[in-house]
Parts: sequence; C-alpha cells; structure tokens
Amino acid sequence: MRPSGRAPEQPRDVRITRQYTKHAEGSVLIEFGDTKVICTASVENKVPPFLRGAGQGWITAEYGMLPRSTGSRMGREAARGKQGGRTVEIQRLIGRSLRAAVDLKKLGENSITIDCDVIQADGGTRTAAITGGCVALVDALNSMVAKGTLKASPLKQMVAALSVGIYEGAAVADLDYPEDSSAETDMNVIMTDRGGFIELQGTAEGEPFEQSELDSMLNLAKQGINQLFEIQKKALEEG
Amino acid sequence: MRPSGRAPEQPRDVRITRQYTKHAEGSVLIEFGDTKVICTASVENKVPPFLRGAGQGWITAEYGMLPRSTGSRMGREAARGKQGGRTVEIQRLIGRSLRAAVDLKKLGENSITIDCDVIQADGGTRTAAITGGCVALVDALNSMVAKGTLKASPLKQMVAALSVGIYEGAAVADLDYPEDSSAETDMNVIMTDRGGFIELQGTAEGEPFEQSELDSMLNLAKQGINQLFEIQKKALEEG
Amino acid sequence: MRPSGRAPEQPRDVRITRQYTKHAEGSVLIEFGDTKVICTASVENKVPPFLRGAGQGWITAEYGMLPRSTGSRMGREAARGKQGGRTVEIQRLIGRSLRAAVDLKKLGENSITIDCDVIQADGGTRTAAITGGCVALVDALNSMVAKGTLKASPLKQMVAALSVGIYEGAAVADLDYPEDSSAETDMNVIMTDRGGFIELQGTAEGEPFEQSELDSMLNLAKQGINQLFEIQKKALEEG
Amino acid sequence: MRPSGRAPEQPRDVRITRQYTKHAEGSVLIEFGDTKVICTASVENKVPPFLRGAGQGWITAEYGMLPRSTGSRMGREAARGKQGGRTVEIQRLIGRSLRAAVDLKKLGENSITIDCDVIQADGGTRTAAITGGCVALVDALNSMVAKGTLKASPLKQMVAALSVGIYEGAAVADLDYPEDSSAETDMNVIMTDRGGFIELQGTAEGEPFEQSELDSMLNLAKQGINQLFEIQKKALEEG
Amino acid sequence: MRPSGRAPEQPRDVRITRQYTKHAEGSVLIEFGDTKVICTASVENKVPPFLRGAGQGWITAEYGMLPRSTGSRMGREAARGKQGGRTVEIQRLIGRSLRAAVDLKKLGENSITIDCDVIQADGGTRTAAITGGCVALVDALNSMVAKGTLKASPLKQMVAALSVGIYEGAAVADLDYPEDSSAETDMNVIMTDRGGFIELQGTAEGEPFEQSELDSMLNLAKQGINQLFEIQKKALEEG
Amino acid sequence: MRPSGRAPEQPRDVRITRQYTKHAEGSVLIEFGDTKVICTASVENKVPPFLRGAGQGWITAEYGMLPRSTGSRMGREAARGKQGGRTVEIQRLIGRSLRAAVDLKKLGENSITIDCDVIQADGGTRTAAITGGCVALVDALNSMVAKGTLKASPLKQMVAALSVGIYEGAAVADLDYPEDSSAETDMNVIMTDRGGFIELQGTAEGEPFEQSELDSMLNLAKQGINQLFEIQKKALEEG
Repeated sequence: MRPSGRAPEQPRDVRITRQYTKHAEGSVLIEFGDTKVICTASVENKVPPFLRGAGQGWITAEYGMLPRSTGSRMGREAARGKQGGRTVEIQRLIGRSLRAAVDLKKLGENSITIDCDVIQADGGTRTAAITGGCVALVDALNSMVAKGTLKASPLKQMVAALSVGIYEGAAVADLDYPEDSSAETDMNVIMTDRGGFIELQGTAEGEPFEQSELDSMLNLAKQGINQLFEIQKKALEEG
Repeated sequence: MRPSGRAPEQPRDVRITRQYTKHAEGSVLIEFGDTKVICTASVENKVPPFLRGAGQGWITAEYGMLPRSTGSRMGREAARGKQGGRTVEIQRLIGRSLRAAVDLKKLGENSITIDCDVIQADGGTRTAAITGGCVALVDALNSMVAKGTLKASPLKQMVAALSVGIYEGAAVADLDYPEDSSAETDMNVIMTDRGGFIELQGTAEGEPFEQSELDSMLNLAKQGINQLFEIQKKALEEG
Repeated sequence: MRPSGRAPEQPRDVRITRQYTKHAEGSVLIEFGDTKVICTASVENKVPPFLRGAGQGWITAEYGMLPRSTGSRMGREAARGKQGGRTVEIQRLIGRSLRAAVDLKKLGENSITIDCDVIQADGGTRTAAITGGCVALVDALNSMVAKGTLKASPLKQMVAALSVGIYEGAAVADLDYPEDSSAETDMNVIMTDRGGFIELQGTAEGEPFEQSELDSMLNLAKQGINQLFEIQKKALEEG
Repeated sequence: MRPSGRAPEQPRDVRITRQYTKHAEGSVLIEFGDTKVICTASVENKVPPFLRGAGQGWITAEYGMLPRSTGSRMGREAARGKQGGRTVEIQRLIGRSLRAAVDLKKLGENSITIDCDVIQADGGTRTAAITGGCVALVDALNSMVAKGTLKASPLKQMVAALSVGIYEGAAVADLDYPEDSSAETDMNVIMTDRGGFIELQGTAEGEPFEQSELDSMLNLAKQGINQLFEIQKKALEEG
Repeated sequence: MRPSGRAPEQPRDVRITRQYTKHAEGSVLIEFGDTKVICTASVENKVPPFLRGAGQGWITAEYGMLPRSTGSRMGREAARGKQGGRTVEIQRLIGRSLRAAVDLKKLGENSITIDCDVIQADGGTRTAAITGGCVALVDALNSMVAKGTLKASPLKQMVAALSVGIYEGAAVADLDYPEDSSAETDMNVIMTDRGGFIELQGTAEGEPFEQSELDSMLNLAKQGINQLFEIQKKALEEG
Repeated sequence: MRPSGRAPEQPRDVRITRQYTKHAEGSVLIEFGDTKVICTASVENKVPPFLRGAGQGWITAEYGMLPRSTGSRMGREAARGKQGGRTVEIQRLIGRSLRAAVDLKKLGENSITIDCDVIQADGGTRTAAITGGCVALVDALNSMVAKGTLKASPLKQMVAALSVGIYEGAAVADLDYPEDSSAETDMNVIMTDRGGFIELQGTAEGEPFEQSELDSMLNLAKQGINQLFEIQKKALEEG
C-alpha cells in the first residue's frame, strides 16, 4: 500500500502551465502532485567556447531549489559559494536528456539554457524538471522560428522522465517524498516519444535489485511516460 | 506622463497570497504589478554564534533572483560561486528592516530566515520583498505561538516599503522597470505602521536631488505605504 | 552630552594630507578625528567590459580595513576568500557617490579606481572615504590634464559626506565609534558643493525615526558638509 | 570490429596490485588495460556530522585525475578552486556503490574514505575505481580487525563495475577511450557478487537505445563482472 | 654603481615609528627608504586547533599590499577571492621568522598575529615586515606583561632581516625596486641578534650564483642586520 | 646516528623511471627512497598572457599530493577549494628552478607545465620533484625537436636538488621523514650541473644555525647533487 493510496502504476496528477513568467522564450510551471518546478528556456545567440566555429548549437541546464522548498530549510547555494554534488549531478542529467530532443546542427550557433528551479519539493524534482523543461524548450524553439532566427524548429522528438522504484517490495511509479525516502531502489527513466531510452539511472538504496525487479520497473516507466507525452502534447496544443 | 499611465501617486496593484508553498512556517507570494517575489519565513531553534547565550533571537534575510526573472538571463549566483554586490546590499536591507518589526528579546533563542526569491522582476523587488516578507514573518511568529514555542507573538509593528523617485522631473510612487531604469532619483522608503521611518535610501542616478524633491518623494511614500499596510492587514485577516 | 564633549553640530577635526604615497595619481590621507583612511586614485586607460565602445569613462571604488584598524582584530578578507557584505555595501556607495562628481563622457575611455583603505577606525569610515576620495580623484583628473591625456578636467562638482544621527534623543553630526555603536538612528548624507543630495542612507538601529528628526539631521548634515567643502578646497589650494 | 581487436564480450586485461603505497590501510593499483587508478582506503575514528550519535559508520569516496593522465592536459582542479561536475558525479557514484558492500551498523562510528586517483586514463576510470576501491576497502576492513578496532569484518558482499555500450551498432563490454568517445550508448553497471544490481547508469550519447539493446548490454555486463569478481578474489587470496 | 648612489654595503635609511595606530597591542610603521609597512601585533587568548591543549602559544603572520602601493595598481586580493602565491610565500616566511624570537611554551595558550600591510612598496617589503614586525611583537609581549597576562616576556632574541643580492656583478645590501627588478641574484637573510641564521632564501633570477658570491652576500647581510638590531633597540628604548 | 642507518653524506637510493605514463611529452617516476613522485611535462603551443608577443616561452610547475600519500590522510585540495600555502610555496620553487635549465627565448612561444604529484611521501618531495621534473623536461624538449616544433633543444644545463639539514647536531644529506620532522635546520639546495646555485632555502626549525653549519650543509649538498646529476644522466642515456 502506497502512502498516497495510489495504485502501483499510477503517477501523481501532472499539470503543465505555459507562459508562467513573462521574460523567458519558454516558461513552464510543472507540477507532479506537490512537486512544483519552474522551467524556463532562455535563448542566446552564442555558443560555449568548446563549440565555437563548429556550426552547431548547444543546450544546457541549471537546477536549483529555493531554500525552503523542502521540509527543513537548506542553506542557499549562492551564499555557500558552491553548488552541491546533488545539484551538479541533476543539472548534468537534465542537460544531457534535453539535448537528445533537438538536432543541434539545425539549431545554428545558438544556445538554450533550461533553468529548473524547484519552488516546492515532494520527490521527483528531476523527472518533473526534464518533463517540464522539454515543453519550455519547444516553446523557445518555436519562438526562434516565429522571430525568423530559425527557418524550422530543430525538434527531433519529445523527451519525458519518470521515477520508478521498489517500495516495500513492489514496483511503483512516480515516487513522492515519503516513498522516495524509504524506497529500496529508485530509478529515473528518461525516454523519447518514439519509445527509446535516453537515460536510465537506477540506484539500490538498500538491497540490490534483481533483473525481474528491473523489468517490472521499466514496464511501469514506459507506461507512465506515455501518459506524460499525452500531457505534454495537450499543453502544447493549448494557447 | 508615466509609461504605465498611472498617476504620480498611484502604486501598482499589490496582491498577497499566503500559504503559497507548503513547507515554510510563513510563505507568501507578493506581486507589485508584474514583480513577483516568493517570501518564506523559516524558523530554527538556534541563534547565530555572535548571539549565543544572549537570551534573544535573530531575524535575517536572503535574496535571490531566478536567472530568467529578468529581461535577459543573468548568470546563476550559485554557479558563479558568489552573491553579487547588489544581492548582498538588498538582503542586508531586508534583514535590517524586518528586525525592526519584532521584539528580538521576546523571540527567545530562535532564528527566523526570510528568503525572498524573485520569480519575475519588473522594478521594486526589494520593496516587494520587505512588504511580503513582513507578512510571512507574522505567519511564522503565529505558528510559533500555535505550536507553543512562544507564549505570545513578539511582533511590535508591521513594516512595509515602497520605492519613490523623480521621473522626468516629477515625484512618482512605486517605479516599475521602465521608470526605474531612467529615473533621475530612486529612493526606497521603509516605514512602520506607527508612522516612523525604518530606513531611507535615496540615490541620485543623474542630477542631485533638492530638499523640495525629497519632501515630495517622502509625501508620496507615506501615502503609498499606508495603502500597503491596508493590503497586508486584509491578507492577514483572510484564511 | 556627547562622549567626546563636542557640540551636537560639531564635526571632528578633519585633516587632509595630499601626496601621501608616491605611486598613485591621487593619494590622500584623510582623518576624521581618530578615523584614518588612505584614499588613492589610480588611472587606467581602459573601461570595464559593459562600457566598451560607449565613448565614456568609469569611476569605481574599493574599500578595505586593515585587520587591526579596529578594537579587536577582524579576519583579513583576502584570507577568508571573500569581501563581507558591509564592505561590498560601502564600496558601492563610494563608487556611486564619486561618479556624481565627474562628467563621465568627458573622461574619455579611461577608468579611475578609488581605493579606500582604513588604517584606523573610529566611526564614519565611509564618509571619510568619500570626502577624501573626492580630493584624490581631483588630483588624478588634474594629473591626466598635466600629462595631456585629457584637455580639461571633467570635474563637475565636489562631493563630500557626513554621518548624522539621533544619539540619546538628539540630532548630532559626525558620530564617532562610541556614538555610532549606541545611536538610535544613523544616517549618511552625501552632497555636492552646489547643494544637492547625491545619496541619503538613514537606518533606525533602535526606534524608528520621525520626520522632525529627519529634518534636524539633514540640517546638521548640510551645515557640516559645507565645512568639509571648505577643508577640501583649502587642501587643494595647497601644494 | 573493435579498435582494440577484442571480441564484443571481452574486457581488457585487469590487474590488481595490493599494498601499492605504504601509508594507507588499503592501497590498490588497478589497471583495466591502459587505465590505471590508485585506490586507497583510509580509516578514521569519527563520522560525519549528520551521523553523530547514530551508532553507525560511513564510507565515502573522492575521485581525481592527474592533470596529464589524459591525452591533453586538463587544468588541475585544486588550482581552479573547484571540482568539476564530472568529478562530483563520479565520486558520488563510487561512494554509493561501495557503501553497498558493507554493513554500516557493524562498522561502528568509523569512516573510510576511498580515494581514487587516475594516473593514466584510457576509458572506464569509474568502473576501475569501484572495482579496485572494493579491494582496498576489504584490506582496510581487515586491518581494522587485525588492530582490534572491529571484532569481525562488516563486509557484506563484493562489488564490481563494468562499462558496456553500443558501439557501431553492437553491444560491447569494457569500452576503452576510442570506443567510449564514439559509442552511441554508454552504460555503467555495478553489481554484487550475489548477482544483484547496485547501480545502473545508461546514457544514449547519440541515438536512444531500445529494450533489446539494454538486454544485450546487461548480459555482457553480468558476464564481465563475474570475471572481475574472480580477479578480485585471486588478488585478495595472494599476500 | 647603484641607482641610488649608495655604497654596496649601505642599507637605506630605516625608520621605526611605534604606537603608529591606537588599537593594536603592538603597532609599528617601518620604513626602509621609500618602502613603508604597517606592522601590528594582535593578541588573542586562544590557540589554533592543532595546538589545543598543547600548553603553548602561537605566532602567525599575514601580509598584504594596498592595491596602489606599487607603480601600477594590483588587483585587491580580497576582491579576487584569494591570496596570491607570492603573498602566501611571504606571510609564511614572516611567521616562521618571528616564531624564532619567542619561547612559545612561555607564551601560554595565547596567539599573536602579526599583520604586515605595505602602504608603499619600493623593494624589500618582506625584510622590512620582519624587522618591524619583531618590534611590534616585543611591544605586544610587554603589554601582556603589563596587563598581567604573562609574568615575564617570553622574548628569546630579536630577529631582523635584510635582502642582499648580486647587482651588475657585485654584492649589494638592501636592494630597492630598481635593483631588485634587474638583480642577478636576490637573497633574503633573517638572523637573530645572537648571530645565528633563522632563514636564508637565495634565488638566482638570471645566472646561477657561485660560492664566492654567496660568501660576499652573507658578509654584507651580517653587517647590515647588525645595524638593524641597533635601530630596533633605539626605537624600543624610546617612549 | 641516523634513523635509517645511513652515513651523514649518504643520500637514499634514487631511481628514475622514464615514460612512466603514456600521454605526456615527458613522464618520469622518481623515487628518493620511499618518496615517490610522478613528474610529467606537458607542452602547449601558447604562452601566458603576460608573455604574449614577447617572443619567448615559459615553464611553470604545479605540485600536489595524493590525499593518502602521507601517514594520516590530508584533505584533498580540490575538494577544499584551494591549494594550501605549502603547496603554493613548493610549486613556485619548482617552477623557478626548472626555468633556470632552459633558454626561454629559444623555446619559442611554447609553454611547458611540469606536474609533480606525490604518490608516496617520506620527506624530500620537493627536491625529488625538481630532480625528476628536470628529466621529464628534457624528454619534452627532445620530443619537440623530434616533432620539428623546435630545431634544437633549448636546454642550457641540468638542474637537481637535495635537502640537507642539521639532525642531532650533525649535518646530514637527503633527510627522510623521521629526520625531517625533528631536524633543527632544513635546507633545500638547487644547483646546476655547472656548479652554480639556483636556489637556497634554509630554515632553522629549532635553534638558529651558524655559518660553520651552513658550510657543512652546503658541502654535503654539492657532493650529493653531483651524484644526482650522474643518475639523471644515466636515466637519459637509457631508452
């Protein structure tokens, strides 16, 4: 029995609000239940030094949590003078995942930064960030087409992410904080809407997990991520 | 004529949403027009080293802007490894202002951190942060009473803040970004609901300002801040 | 009664020593009583990145205190790896104030850095720094004319600063450390020799201050700053 | 055809040298072909702050590369003043993986730090570090028993790691640098000698990977990791 | 022929001003010609962590240069966020040298920090700092006796320092900046007033130096340092 | 009697292994007894900013210790975010010493970085680093000639280094850790194979040292360093 009363395969309610703030080329508030993340996509007409002259673009991500997005206040990373290891790990994952959505050669010598800022955390912030960040990215790409910066959107495919895990011996989808903090295994699955995997990150927090558990988790992930693609699609059709 | 069409003495619409996020003891979204700041108040049962054993509490503030809260993306301070001078200046101002609201001796050996995070910027973020932060602070103090940590709220008085300035030769209240970026003088006024000044910070960006201009600005400030006290009061009476 | 026995409107003895060190284009030791600050003005033939190609110059300031300029030793900021919030706040104030003295367009693409290093502190270091820094700035501008870098000095007006406050219920001018550490209100006033305000920063450390107290403080400030302009003038006429 | 001429399922030659340096409680040089990593295990009789009084021990890892362990020199992280994102990601992975080998409650209030320093890199440094680090950890645990700090070794199981990937369309085991830099998918698999997974990290660098490719990679991983357990076992039986 | 016209063995005029600033337990302005360094000695009733409970005291030094103490402005180390290598090297040398003057066991569990801040640089700042720092240290030790913190001064011997070098083929004493910047060899010699060496640091900037040149330099050093001991002694007898 | 049983003038066994790692232009493992340092020389076709356009090359050094190269684990400098003072001091010494081996004008606009990483420490790491670094440097210069980057090697002379000291009242050569930690005086001597001194750094850790002790130490140093030149020469003749 899950703390939230959800069925094992049931993700939380997912809500996507586009144009959430007014300055960014793409701006999305994504909610996975009580987890709330602001994802903005910012376009700049330049590329990082290692790509200068390479005739392609770049997509990168940064991640942060408001100090009191969590149950007890965390020190502000800007005040401590460095980003923690978990932050670095997550923002690299978001960046790699979203680069898979776009044909970087067709992006031209432009960069898009996806900022994912958690305003309320209840488990699954990185999967919410990827899923919402992809919608912000699509909006930003479309704004580049609208402004004439690009002739066509270089979007190759949609990308979405879900956490799955082994909780009290059973595979479950979209762990919230009470599950996440006591799950035996936690796995983040990032897929494309064509059915391929972009990234798999599974960690046994307690006991190692077996092949059969891996299979169960991946099945739940595929099922749940397909629902996310539907929600992304609906959000993009509105407005 | 102001870019927004407002009368010189007219502040923007101010909205205060309490219980904006679920974890903090006080959590407020404050909007001064398009300026939106999340203010959370977090209680901790300890004091900073310089107050250990002094038998009193402490209130401090931290300020941040989401990287794309502004027209063009700013580098993330956590990634750059330090808070900028403007951030430091603002968070010290917020902390000083809100400490004036509370009898720190009656707070016991507890600390309250007010985190002010700008999710959308359009001028006046520091005055919005102080005005919203005071409401979050009241909620946090009341939660301490409700939990039995304190017998009575140590609130002495409400605090609110408004920017005033000289724009195209005339005194105006609550400058938005287009005004702020071309005003001759910009002044932040922080007052208590008993009518005293907590802090005055006036800066001539272009020409020096005269005593008569100072007097006009202070008159607008008093008038506008009284409206803010009404809005704070209404927000606190709800819910 | 003031601890120093001074009358309420009486500033401390102010001494200005020009050519205090030999390398800088402008080098001043300014003393406000026991407060001693070395102010140097250094000219560089370049501008910061945000002004490149803008056809104007820039003036900036840095502030520091020798570790034992104070009653108990403070940690050295260079050793701690960052400037504290108070330092940042003060150096931004000095920079803004001194930029008001100069027509930056007539400065050409040159920068002047005003370094204000406190060798002995007894209250009022920031007002001493601004008052002495302005003299060092004038010397540096004149040296640029002498070297042929500029045809005429771009000085628009002199700038000087004084602290005023409410000490034991009365307005007083030029607070020394014993007053500063127990004053109810502390206000720094920066003016031009044409009578306008450049910056006002008033903070109620204890009780809020009223309009009438503000008026008294500003009167003392105007009076005292006029004396500072006389002292600057005399110092510049010598040598 | 693999650049090295190896069969798809064939790992590189793996060599483990124990007692490689003289000071550490466990010290191992592990070589996966031309990849060479020094793994030391250092015991300290204390735990990190978050575990004080929890009656358990802790295992953590740090990772570094000598600046010229790679084809072109990388800046030294100590000189740049921060560890890069990749470093942080890898050392967190090593730490999580090796904690799974030990019953932390039976470790007492002791910490073991596994330092993994790459002296020559040719792909697969993180899997070599985990595999060699586990041997250094066993030696450190045994030294604690020998010294009487612990009554019995709290080792639960051996842990080893191998990279697998999709290279030119086929699944291959233990990618070296030429393969790693052009593989479509790269997956790090960490397992226990009882057959469970500790961690899976698969990343599609180019095209997404399919379930069938995942299955092939996992099969190669299991096979290769079993060989690593044999090599660890032999090394531990010697000397 | 030396640029200053001095004879090879002739140091610059050395002046020592005690009680230069009012807060420190020892405060000295030392001048070696145009090189001017403020040396303060600050007493604290505690020792660094590595000496806790060791029943002895500690002496350490910090060194800094005002940004415009030199011909062209150097960046402020506090603003850059780190002390440069030269600074670190020099302050470690000063600390080691001055620890040799004192019986640390008789100092009790007290620390003395010698801050050496260069306000004008013209070569030889580190030797001036050691020579002046020793006088400030004596004053601080005597103040501890006067206050009853110590029963007797733990001073063992005086320490002084002089630079010598090979300039245009000849050994010279107390190099000023024009000599220092083109000398073939530069050597800093730190001695006690009993005639022993505390530290020797000789560096061939251009050609290696021979034993005979070393001998000549050491002879000049001994001679010049004896003069410094006289000057220290006179300064300490005054006031 | 020395702890190792060596005669006073007897250095430890010195072993030099060239081509120790495969990527660097010069790569040496040098062992002074149990002290083991990897020295790599990395060539880059650029010069630091202060030499741009000066028509010469540059040689610099960086030094590090693996965290458990020592008896108890030291914190990793990359994790602490800064290099310690001792590290900075040593790497500056190595750089200065090795620059003396080369005619920088004949090096062209190329830089060589000597990385000296201690994998096992037992005293004398800096002298081992200089002696081994010089061999790595020669290999790197020869590789530049072999690749046609340079027409002839700009090597002027070999450089080697040895520590000498006063241990229990007698001068000894090549102090190991037990001697180093209780020696009265420790001196590092760096010489060229033409017999001149490059650098002398002698420190009295306890009692000051006398001229006669200095003479004894320098005699041992010359004798021992001549043996090091033989060992360097043999190593370079092999392979």
